[in-house]
Amino acid sequence: MKTGKLCILGAGPGGLRAAFEGLRLGFEVTLIERDLVGGTCLNRGCIPTKQYLGATASLPLLRGAKAQKLATGSIVPLLRGIKAKKNRYINAVRQTAEKQLAEAGVRLLFGEGRISAPGKVEVVTHTNGLPPTGTVTGAEETSPPEMDKIMVADSTVYGIQSAEVKLYRMEKDKRTQTTCEWDTLILATGSHPASLPGMAADHDCVLDSTDLLELEDAPQSLIVVGTGPIGLELSDFFSRLGTKITLIESAAQLAPTEDPELGENLRKIYSREGWEILTGRRVASLTTQGDQAVLLFDDGKKLRAAKALLAVGRRPNSTGLGLEKLGLKTRAGGYGWLSVDECLRVAPNVYAIGDVNGQSLFAHAADHQARYVVGHAAGKLGAYAPPPMPACIYGHIEVMRVGPSVVELYTRPDIECSRSNMIANPIAQGACATQGFIKIFWEGGRVCAISALGHGVSHLVGIANVIVTQKWKTEDIHRIIWAHPTLDEALETALTAPREALADHILSDVGFI
Amino acid sequence: MKTGKLCILGAGPGGLRAAFEGLRLGFEVTLIERDLVGGTCLNRGCIPTKQYLGATASLPLLRGAKAQKLATGSIVPLLRGIKAKKNRYINAVRQTAEKQLAEAGVRLLFGEGRISAPGKVEVVTHTNGLPPTGTVTGAEETSPPEMDKIMVADSTVYGIQSAEVKLYRMEKDKRTQTTCEWDTLILATGSHPASLPGMAADHDCVLDSTDLLELEDAPQSLIVVGTGPIGLELSDFFSRLGTKITLIESAAQLAPTEDPELGENLRKIYSREGWEILTGRRVASLTTQGDQAVLLFDDGKKLRAAKALLAVGRRPNSTGLGLEKLGLKTRAGGYGWLSVDECLRVAPNVYAIGDVNGQSLFAHAADHQARYVVGHAAGKLGAYAPPPMPACIYGHIEVMRVGPSVVELYTRPDIECSRSNMIANPIAQGACATQGFIKIFWEGGRVCAISALGHGVSHLVGIANVIVTQKWKTEDIHRIIWAHPTLDEALETALTAPREALADHILSDVGFI
Repeated sequence: MKTGKLCILGAGPGGLRAAFEGLRLGFEVTLIERDLVGGTCLNRGCIPTKQYLGATASLPLLRGAKAQKLATGSIVPLLRGIKAKKNRYINAVRQTAEKQLAEAGVRLLFGEGRISAPGKVEVVTHTNGLPPTGTVTGAEETSPPEMDKIMVADSTVYGIQSAEVKLYRMEKDKRTQTTCEWDTLILATGSHPASLPGMAADHDCVLDSTDLLELEDAPQSLIVVGTGPIGLELSDFFSRLGTKITLIESAAQLAPTEDPELGENLRKIYSREGWEILTGRRVASLTTQGDQAVLLFDDGKKLRAAKALLAVGRRPNSTGLGLEKLGLKTRAGGYGWLSVDECLRVAPNVYAIGDVNGQSLFAHAADHQARYVVGHAAGKLGAYAPPPMPACIYGHIEVMRVGPSVVELYTRPDIECSRSNMIANPIAQGACATQGFIKIFWEGGRVCAISALGHGVSHLVGIANVIVTQKWKTEDIHRIIWAHPTLDEALETALTAPREALADHILSDVGFI
Repeated sequence: MKTGKLCILGAGPGGLRAAFEGLRLGFEVTLIERDLVGGTCLNRGCIPTKQYLGATASLPLLRGAKAQKLATGSIVPLLRGIKAKKNRYINAVRQTAEKQLAEAGVRLLFGEGRISAPGKVEVVTHTNGLPPTGTVTGAEETSPPEMDKIMVADSTVYGIQSAEVKLYRMEKDKRTQTTCEWDTLILATGSHPASLPGMAADHDCVLDSTDLLELEDAPQSLIVVGTGPIGLELSDFFSRLGTKITLIESAAQLAPTEDPELGENLRKIYSREGWEILTGRRVASLTTQGDQAVLLFDDGKKLRAAKALLAVGRRPNSTGLGLEKLGLKTRAGGYGWLSVDECLRVAPNVYAIGDVNGQSLFAHAADHQARYVVGHAAGKLGAYAPPPMPACIYGHIEVMRVGPSVVELYTRPDIECSRSNMIANPIAQGACATQGFIKIFWEGGRVCAISALGHGVSHLVGIANVIVTQKWKTEDIHRIIWAHPTLDEALETALTAPREALADHILSDVGFI
């Protein structure tokens, strides 16, 4: 097995996994982070949004129960409390991760890293050399008792077990310039929110998702440009706080990477909740004017709101890495996504994983790629052949998909689709949230993708993932006893339902004809 | 393939599945039901309790959020509304099932069936010959618009698809005595709540679960005798309505068929919610005195409450079936559970499935056995070899298990256990419900059982079921990409955690030494 010096730029989900995997396989590991351990996922992405949605999950449930005369009452969510708890939690997880890195023997450097020559990275450390633990705005310095418990528990975010944790600080350094040598380099530098022509977050009234998570008072109204996971999850959350939501999407449907029928259902569900939804609309500009966000459409029409969220995708953190020292250019014509070979390399012994290579912008994709590249660097593996990718959009009504989208499947011949609707599922009925459906896509008699819309369908992603990865056939369905009553049974019903050719299915479902 | 006349006694989950499977395989099917299509599961078991828990799911979520200063507010559940909705839902599902039976060509008879001779069942039909649709107390005659939608959707309860449904009634008959002939007979007659010496439901202040689901006002206080799924789920529900709960368990722990550590955790969780919990206590009598339920312990101590629930298990509906006409006696020494052979037969061509054979008192066990016996009767299958059995206890904090219990595993040599705690899981953190754990049991390097306690762990039963059924090894764990953030990751962490010998694990966990 090949080992040696492993240097990793970026301590997000990909970089952290690579560091621990590297140690496990016998590498000498240096991990360089210019900001916060845990990256976007932990500090301003997946985890904060799930804390926000979880803290307010009672609101849509109560609304559903009230609509059916099962309860009365009211709930007032407290954004400052929710934000403070979110910060306590992510700080505790981050501190645990930092401590585990140190205990395991990873050299962790806080600073900007850049390739200075083949086999060398130059790192300019931060002024005080401290890890920026606790630097998220509004974070509390003292952990309450519950957070102490988190710190002694295992961190599922990084899949690490920790027996006992004391508050961890790196030794103080002066601001220094250090050169690290590497035999293997992993670029795991992540991504940042995108801007578009005429639209950039000015952090005043036009915000990116990072800004929005820092608010301490809910805006009266919010224009959300972009209806991918970030736009939809934050809209769902702020609507629970009473914010009037206006969704703007340039594509013809909400959640444009998903099934058109799913997008159409989302439109109906959110319209019923009083959101304004404008699809197929081109934006000319989005700017702060006075104390308002003002959105100007191509056709001259204007919208105003207290705040606007720009959620139009992400761009790679691929500048300033010194790739030119390896004789490399970033992918021509793209936004700087690092082009990788079949082994996720940008150059011999230099890998790019996670968001920065643009393949799949999910924490779990970065994690999987990290496991792979470390194994590949050790000489243990061939080309990267990932299993199907799971993806969820969270909220009261959720989206779940494993495998290719309907849009991709539509281009393949002989795809069949079977389905069930959530309305008769007893768990969905119990939650008073019966919208949605599950679709199973079949290719050559085997499941090749599953997509779902509905309350709690993110909980189906595990079993759906196994089914798609294992390419189940009809006879596999009843090799397990499906527990009753569960949401899973909606999946079982979809798996056993009659199959139709995909083309017919799309045409009739979305009214294309 | 062998077919012929198939007669089924009991239209619960087992009988219904057997009827549809029988038709599919070419049998001529007669289904005899003395009460309500759907049986205990649909009418007074799994489904009503899940509607009750679902309707009030916002209450424990709000309590958790308030404890962490994330929200203020209050919720008042309306039991009459909850009950009315439950009845609308189960009536709609039942009517759909009745209609589907008729459309499919099943002869459905409402009456008491009894074996009158080999190959014959005598059926005494009800006075007016009508199916008792809508006869659940408090059921509404007119379905509201939403229920019409249910009726046109697929019923996941029975896994049947229905395109269009009109209200279905059987033709009126006079009260008649009919004789049905059978080549194959399936006994799927179910079970009823048990009594114990000195304790029987008097339906006044001492209730069984059926009575409790009929209440229109929550009692001020409730003594619950028995802490299996029925006792715990109904306690959780009524505690949300403000009822003061006292749990009585003769065993040393709550949920006595589960892991002792799990029982100990449940005790802590419920004690913190203000429930009184008395384990290892023998009850001498439980009776109505005046307008109270009075429980007398062996040691002379007394407890009083407005109502008491007797939830001490179930007994088979195995009397009056005419088994003596086949020369059979029920299992000696038992409570009348029908003793079956390795093919679930009580006699040649006579099968007993579901609760009445006492093997596994779950709707999904009955369903699985029904599929099997119809296939066996058709000459297609050998001895019954069911996959691992999943089981859940529902509520705000749930229990999930697939495979043998710790108690059973403890008797086997060389079982190992790995675990994770829910506290660091971001989804559990989001819900402010971080109690609990997941345990993976390994035998010969393969997963042989999984058990879990925690918020939402019933949602893990599908993937846990696949893992146990497929007997995963270490190298199987990362054949899928585990989606982040999900509850599933707590399972992934448990799967990859260090393993300890089970004996050590139990001893240290529950303080046996």
